[in-house]
Amino acid sequence: MITSLTNPKVKQLIQLRNRSRARREADVFVVEGIRMFQEIPVEKVKEVYVTESFLKKYKQEEKLKQLRYEVVSEEVFAKMSDTMTPQGVFCVVSCFHYTLREVLGGENPLVLALEDIQDPGNLGTMLRTAEGAGVTGIVMSKGCVDIYNPKVIRSTMGSVYRMPFYVAEDLGDTLEDMKKQGFSVYGASLGDNTEYTEVSYAGKSAILIGNEGNGLKDETLTKVTKTVLIPMAGQVESLNASVSAAVLMYEASRQRRDKQSGK
Amino acid sequence: MITSLTNPKVKQLIQLRNRSRARREADVFVVEGIRMFQEIPVEKVKEVYVTESFLKKYKQEEKLKQLRYEVVSEEVFAKMSDTMTPQGVFCVVSCFHYTLREVLGGENPLVLALEDIQDPGNLGTMLRTAEGAGVTGIVMSKGCVDIYNPKVIRSTMGSVYRMPFYVAEDLGDTLEDMKKQGFSVYGASLGDNTEYTEVSYAGKSAILIGNEGNGLKDETLTKVTKTVLIPMAGQVESLNASVSAAVLMYEASRQRRDKQSGK
Repeated sequence: MITSLTNPKVKQLIQLRNRSRARREADVFVVEGIRMFQEIPVEKVKEVYVTESFLKKYKQEEKLKQLRYEVVSEEVFAKMSDTMTPQGVFCVVSCFHYTLREVLGGENPLVLALEDIQDPGNLGTMLRTAEGAGVTGIVMSKGCVDIYNPKVIRSTMGSVYRMPFYVAEDLGDTLEDMKKQGFSVYGASLGDNTEYTEVSYAGKSAILIGNEGNGLKDETLTKVTKTVLIPMAGQVESLNASVSAAVLMYEASRQRRDKQSGK
Repeated sequence: MITSLTNPKVKQLIQLRNRSRARREADVFVVEGIRMFQEIPVEKVKEVYVTESFLKKYKQEEKLKQLRYEVVSEEVFAKMSDTMTPQGVFCVVSCFHYTLREVLGGENPLVLALEDIQDPGNLGTMLRTAEGAGVTGIVMSKGCVDIYNPKVIRSTMGSVYRMPFYVAEDLGDTLEDMKKQGFSVYGASLGDNTEYTEVSYAGKSAILIGNEGNGLKDETLTKVTKTVLIPMAGQVESLNASVSAAVLMYEASRQRRDKQSGK
């Protein structure tokens, strides 16, 4: 059992939690909490740390039988944890490596493309909603917040384990490539007057969402098939980025279900 | 200029920021930041505090010409402020008092009903999205987080100034009353198989969203006209509450626009 706050392993785990560079170099990320633990793909797990109270509470938990773990004191765990109310389980997990082809592939793909999303809660919520809406892959600009940031991970509620994603060297170039491959790329924009419900997402489609404060860059806007507007009543100037993404993704999902059922 | 951190006024403002009881007793709430200041209804403002750097930066700001304000030192402001990067403007504003009749009234109302929403960011985002989607009023259970919580206020991006809302003594009773008045009440639920796109929001409608962790209470579910499901692909068990609300509100908005344009 690890009981020392100065244990070098504990320091290393905190580095992995706090620093995207440390994660990149070790090619791992960390996850916390019972939910993220239960959904973890066993083959990706490198290390598991638990408290005694966690072991007692979750002794029937299937994952604990499948994985080796190390016990740490409550005090050490509180230091490792990123949350106010630690749940007593902390894992080191291998990073995912998807190719662009995997992210854009499959039958009739629906892709979410993100430019410079800054808020970890927004990015995590977008992954969760994307999985729910049937999105098949996510393409991100290099300016997006690190997907392995613990706040992002937490907000995904497990979707990060399942949703293929790719960080594009140059998002504009990738969007151009996607159009050549037959994708319709719809960019969420405040300046357009084509409502988002007036275009078709039934074929290969991408929904493109820009930065929270600034929206899509002018240069990126030149790469889209069409810009689309979410109509806003009252004096609302814009919606939260994860809300905009949700409204567009679920419209695509609705159209695809209607098409399948022959409506 | 207030320069003392122990000034009784400063203490009082911090109380109003931190304590819902203090706000209720004084019948005021506090707002911060240039955006919330610009959109503030002048007749509701009771006090305004600014820093010298704010005055310098925003000397052309219309609202500063319309309102009396007091200057405070940067140090005092940092103490008053709820944010990491204070913007230098802090206002005390009179609370809103809408009647249930006002919240449910108007031509062909679309109401958002909320049970025990706990996360301030979710509640604020719901208000912002609701205004955008053309919702005409919000009914909340007493178990919802205080709408005047500074984190809620900030997430509304100004919608709190414009969206009529009402805290129901007993949400179930209010929903019953609404049905008697001709409302269709649609409760978001994971257990149903009627998809949310298969019902009509064209008439007087209410969209009912439950608590983040637990959903709607069993007793509340007995009060709805119908429960509706947002279909979820993959292994997603539920969506974020503010995302669910957004998807339902924008489906209602889409149907209402289609109806208007005769589609």
